[in-house]
Amino acid sequence: MKVSELGEFGLIGILADIVGRGKERGVAPAEKLLTGIGDDAAVWQGENYLQLATTDSLVEGVHFDPGTVSWEEIGYKAIAVNLSDIAAMGGTPEYCLVSLALPGETDVDDVKQLYYGMSGIADQFGTAIAGGNVSSAREVMITVTIFGILKGSSALTRSGARVGDKIAITGYTGLSAAWVKMMKTVLPLDMESAALLRQAHLKPVPRIEEGRNLLKYGVKAAIDISDGLIADLTHICEASKVGAVLHEDLVPVHPVLETYFPDDRYQLVFTGGEDYELLFTAPDDIMKDVERNVSCPVHPVGEITGEVDEHVIIIDGKGSRVRFRKSGWAHF
Amino acid sequence: MKVSELGEFGLIGILADIVGRGKERGVAPAEKLLTGIGDDAAVWQGENYLQLATTDSLVEGVHFDPGTVSWEEIGYKAIAVNLSDIAAMGGTPEYCLVSLALPGETDVDDVKQLYYGMSGIADQFGTAIAGGNVSSAREVMITVTIFGILKGSSALTRSGARVGDKIAITGYTGLSAAWVKMMKTVLPLDMESAALLRQAHLKPVPRIEEGRNLLKYGVKAAIDISDGLIADLTHICEASKVGAVLHEDLVPVHPVLETYFPDDRYQLVFTGGEDYELLFTAPDDIMKDVERNVSCPVHPVGEITGEVDEHVIIIDGKGSRVRFRKSGWAHF
Repeated sequence: MKVSELGEFGLIGILADIVGRGKERGVAPAEKLLTGIGDDAAVWQGENYLQLATTDSLVEGVHFDPGTVSWEEIGYKAIAVNLSDIAAMGGTPEYCLVSLALPGETDVDDVKQLYYGMSGIADQFGTAIAGGNVSSAREVMITVTIFGILKGSSALTRSGARVGDKIAITGYTGLSAAWVKMMKTVLPLDMESAALLRQAHLKPVPRIEEGRNLLKYGVKAAIDISDGLIADLTHICEASKVGAVLHEDLVPVHPVLETYFPDDRYQLVFTGGEDYELLFTAPDDIMKDVERNVSCPVHPVGEITGEVDEHVIIIDGKGSRVRFRKSGWAHF
Repeated sequence: MKVSELGEFGLIGILADIVGRGKERGVAPAEKLLTGIGDDAAVWQGENYLQLATTDSLVEGVHFDPGTVSWEEIGYKAIAVNLSDIAAMGGTPEYCLVSLALPGETDVDDVKQLYYGMSGIADQFGTAIAGGNVSSAREVMITVTIFGILKGSSALTRSGARVGDKIAITGYTGLSAAWVKMMKTVLPLDMESAALLRQAHLKPVPRIEEGRNLLKYGVKAAIDISDGLIADLTHICEASKVGAVLHEDLVPVHPVLETYFPDDRYQLVFTGGEDYELLFTAPDDIMKDVERNVSCPVHPVGEITGEVDEHVIIIDGKGSRVRFRKSGWAHF
């Protein structure tokens, strides 16, 4: 069977089975591993704190096209998507390694711009780029690994959702995918709206402070929205063995989507992906605390229910079920 | 300027300048960073121990050709080359992340074999594969990051060599490059010799225990031989601001090289690369302790001298200087 037939998440399941159960095989560090493959970051018990580590790659032609974005933006995003995984665990990023593969004919100035982009956001989030590696390759690939800490007894995880929890998201979804759509269809947006979409796609702000605050107010379950709202809520449902209902009339639609994407706005909001907002669940009282105290817009969007076959159900304002063509962004 | 004109090490210098001095820019973790870009692994002060982190990629068509090696061997080597970087610092590996990029048409069974190879060596060295990431790409690239610890006050570094130190290596060099040469020229080796070269190239054994012992007996400077004996000794000389003399008649030549590569044996031994043996320097008394106590062959090969323009000089048995065409394996 080909990887494309099995799909990204099927493949990850198989690989997790192969490397899992290290504890049973006598691998000492596996005994301190609290969260392995299948969450936003790995978590292990350090001497005093929890230790977090995550890795993610940007691949030329898959995640970016150097013809339409600047190298500085690519560098920013390569770090941002990894910081977002640390945010989704409620952690604090500390150190970063960069493995860079690129063709020999790449311009040195482009690589410098790439590193200015990485260095800028690393500084902004108090993260030191501590090392890395350079290889030649036919296509550019930037793999970033971030190492963080969490001063508490447990991280936010995908498996922490409970029946009766409210579901909420920070900020808006769909804006990043709208930029991709805009670039494909050459939609005539006003300058300000176009800049907002470009910012959402290329300069997402990792919700580090928000993630830490969610943990502080008692939230247990979170994920960052990289694959799309439905797809990432499905990841939470699978890991927590629960179902979920999303209310179409609660899910926030940004005014730019209302104006320029009237037919696709819900498609974008529910399935767009690469938003790097946090999706989280918590009992009602905790959710109220979060809404009052977190520094960005928090939008309630649904509830966790008992386990259902499809995991995530979407209901419109009249109580009818809504279906979308595609549940989110996935490799292969 | 193109990256290929600047070269791998020139590029790393420029990138280190861009991300360096994080401490001056107020990045808190940078204050605990003891070794940043430019050594085998990054080192920072953890709560109780030193923390080590390293990353390295294997790229299809650059580091391996799936037509001539098995996926299990590729998986083994992807982990081994990173473990070797931890060994070169004197550390103990603990956790590993794998970022895998591959075309959708890759066979799932091949990916499983890749992970069996990774899981096998990770188990062998007590390292837990804690997470990772899967992306689509046109060519296969495996990026591994390993986190380790070091229970001591300082790591082995490239900058620890001092004038008067003896230089030694563990095991033999040139065998890995001899395998590459054998595959290109279809040399008719006996089965046992061919298997030994294949093992050296595809199943190098990271010198984890030896690295820890070097540190224990007081060695300060080490590097793993990935670029070649001369090239890696040059890295030590540059970082330590010293020079070095290698004695051609001291450097060990494996019998298989004597037999099958009589004309190229010294070329292979001095410039081959991908040996993953440890090259280290220490005062004479420490070196004698190491030779008595380390569990693998330790070969003295030269001395550290005052700084010289060319860094590394090779002298034959008659005291004449020897030169080699190429100082080692480098990207671009």
